[in-house]
Amino acid sequence: MKSYLIDSDKGIDAIQKVDVTEVSPGAGEVKVKMKAASLNYRDLIVAGGGYIRNDTRPVVPLSDGAGEVTEVGAGVTRWKVGDRVSPIFMRDWIDGAVDSAKLKTGLGGGVDGVLAESMIVREQSLVAIPDGMSFAEAAAVPCAGVTAWHALFESGNLQPGQTVLLLGTGGVSIFALQLAKAAGARVIITSSSDEKIEQATAMGADMSVNYSKHPEWHKHVHDLTGGNGVDHVVEVGGPGTLERSIKSAGVGGHVHLIGVLDSPGAKISPMLSVFNLLTIRGIYVGSRQMHQRMLAAMTVNQIAPVIDKTFSFDDAIAAYHYFASQKHVGKVVIEF
Amino acid sequence: MKSYLIDSDKGIDAIQKVDVTEVSPGAGEVKVKMKAASLNYRDLIVAGGGYIRNDTRPVVPLSDGAGEVTEVGAGVTRWKVGDRVSPIFMRDWIDGAVDSAKLKTGLGGGVDGVLAESMIVREQSLVAIPDGMSFAEAAAVPCAGVTAWHALFESGNLQPGQTVLLLGTGGVSIFALQLAKAAGARVIITSSSDEKIEQATAMGADMSVNYSKHPEWHKHVHDLTGGNGVDHVVEVGGPGTLERSIKSAGVGGHVHLIGVLDSPGAKISPMLSVFNLLTIRGIYVGSRQMHQRMLAAMTVNQIAPVIDKTFSFDDAIAAYHYFASQKHVGKVVIEF
Amino acid sequence: MKSYLIDSDKGIDAIQKVDVTEVSPGAGEVKVKMKAASLNYRDLIVAGGGYIRNDTRPVVPLSDGAGEVTEVGAGVTRWKVGDRVSPIFMRDWIDGAVDSAKLKTGLGGGVDGVLAESMIVREQSLVAIPDGMSFAEAAAVPCAGVTAWHALFESGNLQPGQTVLLLGTGGVSIFALQLAKAAGARVIITSSSDEKIEQATAMGADMSVNYSKHPEWHKHVHDLTGGNGVDHVVEVGGPGTLERSIKSAGVGGHVHLIGVLDSPGAKISPMLSVFNLLTIRGIYVGSRQMHQRMLAAMTVNQIAPVIDKTFSFDDAIAAYHYFASQKHVGKVVIEF
Amino acid sequence: MKSYLIDSDKGIDAIQKVDVTEVSPGAGEVKVKMKAASLNYRDLIVAGGGYIRNDTRPVVPLSDGAGEVTEVGAGVTRWKVGDRVSPIFMRDWIDGAVDSAKLKTGLGGGVDGVLAESMIVREQSLVAIPDGMSFAEAAAVPCAGVTAWHALFESGNLQPGQTVLLLGTGGVSIFALQLAKAAGARVIITSSSDEKIEQATAMGADMSVNYSKHPEWHKHVHDLTGGNGVDHVVEVGGPGTLERSIKSAGVGGHVHLIGVLDSPGAKISPMLSVFNLLTIRGIYVGSRQMHQRMLAAMTVNQIAPVIDKTFSFDDAIAAYHYFASQKHVGKVVIEF
Repeated sequence: MKSYLIDSDKGIDAIQKVDVTEVSPGAGEVKVKMKAASLNYRDLIVAGGGYIRNDTRPVVPLSDGAGEVTEVGAGVTRWKVGDRVSPIFMRDWIDGAVDSAKLKTGLGGGVDGVLAESMIVREQSLVAIPDGMSFAEAAAVPCAGVTAWHALFESGNLQPGQTVLLLGTGGVSIFALQLAKAAGARVIITSSSDEKIEQATAMGADMSVNYSKHPEWHKHVHDLTGGNGVDHVVEVGGPGTLERSIKSAGVGGHVHLIGVLDSPGAKISPMLSVFNLLTIRGIYVGSRQMHQRMLAAMTVNQIAPVIDKTFSFDDAIAAYHYFASQKHVGKVVIEF
Repeated sequence: MKSYLIDSDKGIDAIQKVDVTEVSPGAGEVKVKMKAASLNYRDLIVAGGGYIRNDTRPVVPLSDGAGEVTEVGAGVTRWKVGDRVSPIFMRDWIDGAVDSAKLKTGLGGGVDGVLAESMIVREQSLVAIPDGMSFAEAAAVPCAGVTAWHALFESGNLQPGQTVLLLGTGGVSIFALQLAKAAGARVIITSSSDEKIEQATAMGADMSVNYSKHPEWHKHVHDLTGGNGVDHVVEVGGPGTLERSIKSAGVGGHVHLIGVLDSPGAKISPMLSVFNLLTIRGIYVGSRQMHQRMLAAMTVNQIAPVIDKTFSFDDAIAAYHYFASQKHVGKVVIEF
Repeated sequence: MKSYLIDSDKGIDAIQKVDVTEVSPGAGEVKVKMKAASLNYRDLIVAGGGYIRNDTRPVVPLSDGAGEVTEVGAGVTRWKVGDRVSPIFMRDWIDGAVDSAKLKTGLGGGVDGVLAESMIVREQSLVAIPDGMSFAEAAAVPCAGVTAWHALFESGNLQPGQTVLLLGTGGVSIFALQLAKAAGARVIITSSSDEKIEQATAMGADMSVNYSKHPEWHKHVHDLTGGNGVDHVVEVGGPGTLERSIKSAGVGGHVHLIGVLDSPGAKISPMLSVFNLLTIRGIYVGSRQMHQRMLAAMTVNQIAPVIDKTFSFDDAIAAYHYFASQKHVGKVVIEF
Repeated sequence: MKSYLIDSDKGIDAIQKVDVTEVSPGAGEVKVKMKAASLNYRDLIVAGGGYIRNDTRPVVPLSDGAGEVTEVGAGVTRWKVGDRVSPIFMRDWIDGAVDSAKLKTGLGGGVDGVLAESMIVREQSLVAIPDGMSFAEAAAVPCAGVTAWHALFESGNLQPGQTVLLLGTGGVSIFALQLAKAAGARVIITSSSDEKIEQATAMGADMSVNYSKHPEWHKHVHDLTGGNGVDHVVEVGGPGTLERSIKSAGVGGHVHLIGVLDSPGAKISPMLSVFNLLTIRGIYVGSRQMHQRMLAAMTVNQIAPVIDKTFSFDDAIAAYHYFASQKHVGKVVIEF
């Protein structure tokens, strides 16, 4: 079967397409014929060599995928042939809190990912795809969707009536918008593009700030909230936005730091955090149980992931380039 | 000014209408000209003498009201003349956890209530009525709305995608239905009337059980949830329903016990609670801060309290009788 | 090798000692040579056929044991030969919340237990025994110790300065006493024996009630707490005590219901739960992570399980009989 | 009566001692004859003009005091003449979460403090001094003790067996040491002085790092914790320590940021926070209910505040200078 492979730090164009001998699942494992995958900003960093700490070489790229069970190993009880499944982002983070060993099992980084015609997965490391959700949609949620869910509901305990600030219209922000609106919250979204703001408003955003017009956009956020600031910020924007995000939070507010768009140069001034009794929490995707709870929430609220554009398995490198150009609103998907 | 007064345990018809000399607010107090009030099942019990432990005599009846500030006492900073306000259910429960002293300050029971043309209220014991909400609507929420909010969000930490079981179509259940749907949950409602089930479905209930047709209705609830049981039960039904409510909850589920419809005869078998690791929690309205958070959630989600019928101040006794006949879906309101 | 086996509901004397062919661990499994086991009240119920719902027949009895790894299967990463380990109570409850599938994997009930010269265990279903803790001590903690830990710290969030009521001097109560004192809480213990009260006082109990002298002992508890009631009750006593336990809790208090000593006849009146805003929560042992956290707490606080008496592997039936006679304070242990 | 007064930003020597006309308490207020006060680092900043945002001029200095009720105003129910009481740090933060209005009511900053022979206090803004605790001891706890309590127990949910890192031997760190040990945790303390480390060890610290000998002290912390890092850091050290504090925390760990020793120049790199899923939370003293819970914990665990040195009311300026010289371990107290 065909598989893509990263064996260098030289970026997108160094990703190879190779032939791999198929194997059968061992005890406790299943074989999944992949049907779809999707891209995240983190996948660009992995290809460029940025996540050295947890990454291995060579590695099959991409964390987010979906497929069908075609073979089950000895002792498997959770799945049968024909089941529609999606691998979880961190292979060994099933439930509860994470630890440093589990953090090393991110698909497409620490362990092999989904960009292959089939893969062998431990039976504990898969979730069922809900009825009515396509393979492409299921492949769109693991990294960005679970991150948004983890921030707002597992860590932030979002309540109806609270206000959430989202930065831009990338994958995490769009999932956070859909989930926060389904949960009865009020959403403020920032963007540099009036067109993207219009799209977000059509998806339910209550208020918006065009930060290219309002460079001091945190002041605008305070104006929009009667001077109180917001209850939650999902901070995905990195060095350019972090300080203003913190200033946008109200007393007792939560700033959810999302890893992948971060940069070593970003700094937080702690003074404001203390006087406003802020909680700043690092969020790095989540567990299988979070993944399942998010899928349940999507099902009950009929939330479909927003898919910007779809590429074929053979055009995976083109998908990478399109994604890197940052023209998308929502997810870039590869269908097999 | 006119005020109603309970000075016996002889029930509705013993409630008197009396003339009271008006007084001015003291330091830290405001005077509120009342515009609306609403009835709760607890008010029938108070009139009948059932809540002896915390009740005083004589007492101005009813906990739920709304009005306009007409005079402010010395040192008042939270309000000015003309502000639209609603007294909180328990005068001294402002924030945090409750204690036995605060429990004795329920309006229309432990201290004077709202069924009077004007009342003196401590400035800390009022909430602002949101723009766009009428006095009648604001008067509909304190007891039933805050109870539903407390159960689902403060105690139960309801998440989108979870399933909530509601019993009947009384005040607490209807608020719980509106709030749970706004928060992205799935709702199952029980009733003995297909007509009431239809009304609840029109308001968003996802599934229903007619318990007069399904006396073993907890089994039906398990069927509706794929055998899992529900995440939350808001138990308002008392002795006839308690055991089945507990059986309807899934492993790790929450049973929120609401006080006012309860009866001393109701019993819980603990065995099932242990093996299913259930949390059974007594809920008794809530604090001012819960009241404010609930109003914020109603505002963001454009939830209007469901008002069944409105009576005039002079017809307050007729309102009690109509309420006692249990024909209503939603709240019975008195407008001044 | 020798193993005990339960293949009936006929009680202690029907437990057989049999010869079993030794097998090697499969992939992801290890073989543990057992060194010690301990008894819990639940083991009497299993032998008598009382836990039908989750039990299998035939089954190797007892949940609590400790031993040494003698062989590791393919792919095992958590253990090596020579490691000192203890199986967790519920084989599949590793972390996070429990579900109905995991509840069926209790050792010595739903799946084979520890009363055998060796056993095969999945590598995820073991914890490491801390340095300085003997096999007998490690075998004393899984059921009773993890239950006490789960109640007080995972569910009850016990804080220093709070008051805990413990009923009697059985396994769960003694662990709860040791852990609550280590955590800076105040402990009240009940017993019908002044001698047992003396022993508990020597172990740190701050106050006590002899319930044979004070049949209305909940009133005594209120006296001891300045009329406030306690913050936590660890209710292990069953039908005879449940109602008074609930009455002993203060406003906002927690009643932790422990399964094994419970009986179908016990009933809870919900009225008091509501008016005192109590939380009543079913506790059924706990996860591997809770087990590990409890062992860490025991290590830091130099807590040694209290062992009442030790029997040999060949005298296991005598150990059962001694345990059933309820003369012990602390744990009854079998050493291999 | 005599009172000290700050009416400039010119530092300690500009604090004046003035004569003030005594007044009687109004409705809901009590008069307290002060018996003791204590100093905190924040008081130096206030005297120097550093907390402009929330401070008023002129202001009676110091937040921490204790005294006796000598007169009660109309309607007061919580206190009577002769009661031993201590004002809370933030006058209006009684319970629940803080907001921006409450944040402006810090004694000795936003509103008048305790360095006067008597003061008028709202009855809600006092706590009772436990029996057996002296005025000097009660005056030692409000700012530093409540901060340590808030960090570890209200925000951090410290459990027995967890590891806490404390920086230095200032007021907050010493309270945190006493409380963490009472709660069954393991404590690592840093200092530049072997003598201070010896004192901390005598008070229960389990491990220590002399950071003048180990400039890369976070690595030493990892060595002391088997490479895991700590569960909690109480970060009081400011710019020079913040980055290493964050590096000392384990995966999922908590960094509690304490305000007063902070400086605008301190910066946090968010990358590590994300990858280790850290929670960084600003802590700013706490509510009256936290103050009461802390006093209960001190009472049950017989914790006495560590008092370094005592000055007379007339020598208050000398007390400031001694405190500013940073020679103390524990609290500097003024007795009236």
